Amino acid sequence: MNIAILFGGSSFEHEISIVSAITMKKVLKKSTITYIFISPQREFFLVDTEKINSKLFSSGEYKKGKQLTLKQGGFFADGLFGSKQVEFDVVMNLIHGRDGEDGKISSMMTFFDIPFISPRTEASSLSYNKLYTKFLAESLGVKTVAYEHLTKNGERKVTMDYPVIIKPVRLGSSIGVSIVKEASELDYALDVAFEFDSDVIVEPFINGVKEFNQAGCYTDGWELSIVEEPQKEEFLDFEKKYMDFSRDSQVLSADISDELKEKIQGAFKTLYDPLFRGSIIRCDFFVVDNEVLLNEINPIPGSMANYLFPDFEGMVNRLAKHLPKEQKISIDYTYIHSIQSAKGKA
Amino acid sequence: MNIAILFGGSSFEHEISIVSAITMKKVLKKSTITYIFISPQREFFLVDTEKINSKLFSSGEYKKGKQLTLKQGGFFADGLFGSKQVEFDVVMNLIHGRDGEDGKISSMMTFFDIPFISPRTEASSLSYNKLYTKFLAESLGVKTVAYEHLTKNGERKVTMDYPVIIKPVRLGSSIGVSIVKEASELDYALDVAFEFDSDVIVEPFINGVKEFNQAGCYTDGWELSIVEEPQKEEFLDFEKKYMDFSRDSQVLSADISDELKEKIQGAFKTLYDPLFRGSIIRCDFFVVDNEVLLNEINPIPGSMANYLFPDFEGMVNRLAKHLPKEQKISIDYTYIHSIQSAKGKA
Repeated sequence: MNIAILFGGSSFEHEISIVSAITMKKVLKKSTITYIFISPQREFFLVDTEKINSKLFSSGEYKKGKQLTLKQGGFFADGLFGSKQVEFDVVMNLIHGRDGEDGKISSMMTFFDIPFISPRTEASSLSYNKLYTKFLAESLGVKTVAYEHLTKNGERKVTMDYPVIIKPVRLGSSIGVSIVKEASELDYALDVAFEFDSDVIVEPFINGVKEFNQAGCYTDGWELSIVEEPQKEEFLDFEKKYMDFSRDSQVLSADISDELKEKIQGAFKTLYDPLFRGSIIRCDFFVVDNEVLLNEINPIPGSMANYLFPDFEGMVNRLAKHLPKEQKISIDYTYIHSIQSAKGKA
Repeated sequence: MNIAILFGGSSFEHEISIVSAITMKKVLKKSTITYIFISPQREFFLVDTEKINSKLFSSGEYKKGKQLTLKQGGFFADGLFGSKQVEFDVVMNLIHGRDGEDGKISSMMTFFDIPFISPRTEASSLSYNKLYTKFLAESLGVKTVAYEHLTKNGERKVTMDYPVIIKPVRLGSSIGVSIVKEASELDYALDVAFEFDSDVIVEPFINGVKEFNQAGCYTDGWELSIVEEPQKEEFLDFEKKYMDFSRDSQVLSADISDELKEKIQGAFKTLYDPLFRGSIIRCDFFVVDNEVLLNEINPIPGSMANYLFPDFEGMVNRLAKHLPKEQKISIDYTYIHSIQSAKGKA
């Protein structure tokens, strides 16, 4: 299978998307990979799979490659002898943060009728926004961490006990996130967060909370990853996260009871189906008093959470064959014809 | 001002979008209009403003016009002497239903950095889905009509009293909507609705309920329309709705108290700001026991609800000058540079 990896984008996570994309070369060994880079200026460039490395992007050398145009059915390179379509079977959206996670890429792939692995637009809009993720989970009966919602121009009032964690609702990474240990630190943390977003959520910061990650997708059946207990850090700063996105070796399953595992996997399935069909996502859960709480949905997890799956490449192939189809709408101009007849016009 | 009207699209409301678009020629008298048609196959065509009429589309004659390509900064026509940009100041998204209201157009306009009048992607995803509209309204403290949510594969249980109204959550028009007078009619109505969507909401059908429409936008201040009490029909069927989309003459304000008007306008402002900045929307409210309940948000109302505004064209011009700006993200490859240094690679 020929997989076109779409990466880069106009995102704070542009650079970690490059790291994720390069990592895929080590992971998708049996597949042909076609690399399509989205520059910071949002132009499309074909990148030579043999030559890909991070310097190609930081040096701007990628600009020497073929520039591509998006048209019905695919990406095209314009040349002397007309327009030539870039060949691949499926796109994998590996753009973290803005553009990739907020629904732009999904919208374009759907509009131009290009098969793609990624959450669809609606799933993207909901999961990109931490506040709407809460609404979604609540509507599906999945519990979430308690929260308060503050707006840039609204009152800066927090009623929960400190310490709390402040998160801009729309950023995929840890940018703008602060842990606030006491009320006196609140204003500064909110100033920082509101630099990035008009909306912020405040959650209790639970020191030493048990955290578990579950990734997966639905192909011709459920394909769930192992449950991972991620390394404990207060939270990952940007550089640590960056290194984390280049992971390509299997990790061990968390040592948990079958009962807890079933609860986590049940919550994952409820959140995933049918909204996230066509994508590989990772859900991060907290466990408090034996109750499973959704912390976050990662709609485009770092290096697609490949290290959590026993057969990642096989799963990607199966998923590519089981992508959701858009409803066909046939347009026959019945109403325009009938109005023209009524008006006596031909 | 040169306004590019984007219309058509792969939508059940393709034909009424054509009607809306043609109506704009009568409404935007002082402006230059550039018409860009999206065919049922989702290709872009430039349409001659002088010659536009509905037959151009039903006959397929539009295909003789220039086909356009979307690239950074705008739409381009390829010709013998290279690629020529179509000139305009702002796009007005007039695509009703799928493509226009579900966030695809907004995503593309944002990605390609084209100024546009329309709800942005997040606002589109929420308002295109009647269930998510409920979440949004509830989170903002705006009351909505009571509802129950049914899924295609879930239990078909309705606990509210009949008659009820069944609505697929994702369709902009009345397609798939039924009024169910008693329990025995439920299954058939749900079969119809689930033909169109995996999710359905059930609401009480309130015979003779008072209904009021409020349209508006935020330019350099609030620009609210008159409050309209729409004509009473059980609900508009497709053909009636079709005619409704070609309205271009002012209607009268509803005869309501100042107190009720303030409540309706207050609810509108709460729903609109800041999520819907950059768009002209219409909110349809019910009034039950003097309480204002949101019925639906129309993110791309028929002919932009022009007939509700005293100075529609002036407002469009002001809105074009006050569109929300996407945050600039500068990418300097700091992390890639630092990792390259750490690895000792140039």
